[in-house]
Amino acid sequence: MVNPVEFTRDLIRCPSVTPADAGALDVLEQKLTALGFTCTRLPFSEPGTPDVDNLYARLGTDAPNFCFAGHTDVVPVGAAADWSVDPFAGEVNDGWLTGRGAADMKGAIAAFVAAVSRLLDDGEVKGSISFLITGDEEGPAINGTIKMLQWLEDNGEKLDYCLVGEPTNPTTLGEMAKIGRRGSLNTRLVVKGTQGHVAYPHLADNPIPRLIEILHRLTGKKLDDGNDHFQPSNLEVVTIDVGNEASNVIPAEAEARFNIRFNNEQSIDGLKDWIRSVCDAVGGEVELEMKASGDAFLTPPGVLSDLITGAVEKVTGIRPELSTTGGTSDARFIKDYCPVSEFGLVSQTMHKVDERVRVEDIEQLADIYTEILNRFFRNQG
Amino acid sequence: MVNPVEFTRDLIRCPSVTPADAGALDVLEQKLTALGFTCTRLPFSEPGTPDVDNLYARLGTDAPNFCFAGHTDVVPVGAAADWSVDPFAGEVNDGWLTGRGAADMKGAIAAFVAAVSRLLDDGEVKGSISFLITGDEEGPAINGTIKMLQWLEDNGEKLDYCLVGEPTNPTTLGEMAKIGRRGSLNTRLVVKGTQGHVAYPHLADNPIPRLIEILHRLTGKKLDDGNDHFQPSNLEVVTIDVGNEASNVIPAEAEARFNIRFNNEQSIDGLKDWIRSVCDAVGGEVELEMKASGDAFLTPPGVLSDLITGAVEKVTGIRPELSTTGGTSDARFIKDYCPVSEFGLVSQTMHKVDERVRVEDIEQLADIYTEILNRFFRNQG
Ligand SMILES: [Zn+2]
Ligand SMILES: [Zn+2]
Repeated sequence: MVNPVEFTRDLIRCPSVTPADAGALDVLEQKLTALGFTCTRLPFSEPGTPDVDNLYARLGTDAPNFCFAGHTDVVPVGAAADWSVDPFAGEVNDGWLTGRGAADMKGAIAAFVAAVSRLLDDGEVKGSISFLITGDEEGPAINGTIKMLQWLEDNGEKLDYCLVGEPTNPTTLGEMAKIGRRGSLNTRLVVKGTQGHVAYPHLADNPIPRLIEILHRLTGKKLDDGNDHFQPSNLEVVTIDVGNEASNVIPAEAEARFNIRFNNEQSIDGLKDWIRSVCDAVGGEVELEMKASGDAFLTPPGVLSDLITGAVEKVTGIRPELSTTGGTSDARFIKDYCPVSEFGLVSQTMHKVDERVRVEDIEQLADIYTEILNRFFRNQG
Repeated sequence: MVNPVEFTRDLIRCPSVTPADAGALDVLEQKLTALGFTCTRLPFSEPGTPDVDNLYARLGTDAPNFCFAGHTDVVPVGAAADWSVDPFAGEVNDGWLTGRGAADMKGAIAAFVAAVSRLLDDGEVKGSISFLITGDEEGPAINGTIKMLQWLEDNGEKLDYCLVGEPTNPTTLGEMAKIGRRGSLNTRLVVKGTQGHVAYPHLADNPIPRLIEILHRLTGKKLDDGNDHFQPSNLEVVTIDVGNEASNVIPAEAEARFNIRFNNEQSIDGLKDWIRSVCDAVGGEVELEMKASGDAFLTPPGVLSDLITGAVEKVTGIRPELSTTGGTSDARFIKDYCPVSEFGLVSQTMHKVDERVRVEDIEQLADIYTEILNRFFRNQG
């Protein structure tokens, strides 16, 4: 039997600040090997990006292959002096486990390992259980999940269902699972003009009014109303920068950056065309850099969401909302290979000082994951 | 007799980069004393601003007092290595005198001194001639013309007409005199919001859309059509700055600065009220800092402009346009005391590397100023 709280503490004690591994994958591999898993380390590298180690572990060879996906890397501690405890000591106080990665997402990995150990205590299962664990989710996400999935395909490894253990609950365990994610498109827009003196505007060409006009049109448009599974797509201008110190000088260029979080009513290409057409309509010379994290996606309610909903409700008494809100996760890559949904701990303190989870939440999450596995492999529930 | 070109070179050789005097006022005072002027140095100081020396010189005690106003301070040389000559050597090559202050405005001061010396060669005049010369026109303009004018009033010194020797001609000597100036209003606008994550816009309050809306309304409004003497008032946004490095963060505030050059159809208070009302209509919390250089003003065509126009046309064959374009000058202070207009050299290279004037232009300007003085004091022309 694996104690999920103790194992979370073991993982937190490896200071695996992305891209460092700091022994976290070894700790996990050791435990999974003991449970009978075949472990394959998948280190990847690419010029200009940090080398990253990853782990694929599988128990069994038959289909269906139920996969748990996650990451052992964590974000930096930030203002270290503001932490009330050592962020890598895994301290437990008053029912709370505090440490970097407690919520995002070493606690969920430990809970799933504990769930597997309980499942196996009741005998072997038909089908396979696998772990797809990257050390590059908080980093550039180039040498992690994407390359692992490609490696799986190249090696005939098929995933049938994937549960991602990211923290999905805003405040209370059980309130939210994620069955999709919005896409994210970042744009950098530079509007060009001609420098001059404010007293002689006819000799200059101020780029700022054109930038204002473009942003006014972009922010003034309602992209869509959302749908059953998605909130409306949304554009946020995150910065505008000219950097002109002189009050009497018309600047030569003006830059803005904006982010669109979009649902499955939109497409990356459609949004890019719209942005270009607004710039063209306003006129003048612009520079546009547009970079998308991936299209929006949805795993429509079905086998996977039913498993999660049923298990969560049984353990917590709460029926989770099937949401598509929030930031991106590696589910955006996995969705091209098999149905994928997400359920994990409470996200409230993730990426913050004093990241922490209730000890009871880790135990309940292990119960939920156990219930999911029992329902999937033994048709119990 | 004073040679205007030689005397311009003498003045340029004093590197009077504002607020330094570097002997420039001494050189001028010596020459004016020799011509019979009573010279009064008027040094002023104020906490937080540089000490500045100034010179008021008067010949005669009777009215009318015809005043020439100008400044001996110059702007810094800028990129010294880019100058083709020593900026303070007063070099003459191929008919051009190159040096910092040649156009703005040591050449005009020398031309007026030369004109006075010629006038006096033909005998005494009725009335008075005076020089109001500051060392603080290119600086904060706090310890210069404003305080000198107050001193004149306190000491019973009355000016009847004032000719300012700023460079008024865009490209060719004779094409433009200035009979007024637009006002200038600088505004700094900070729109406040609440920081947050782009994925959770309902938990944040992005100030940028409100800033865009305010600037869209401000830049979209036609302030006026101008009039016989003024071009339309004009607003230029000179910078917008947020300084947000993160593409997924909604910023807490956004700042813009804009400048309005306005004519005598507008007032400072009216413009301030308009800006405030636009901000109020858009709503939300803003910080507004508005600072005006002074209201627009006009010396309607009359005695002074007739003198300038007649003299310029006689010497150059060109009838000057009576304009109110361009930046501000100390005429904005003098206009409260007597009719004031401006005519000087060609402005093309002022404040730039290799500031220069044609030797012939300085000689022609001395002829024009002589003609003005003859017409004013001897009714010749
Ligand atoms: Zn995570
Ligand atoms: Zn000047």
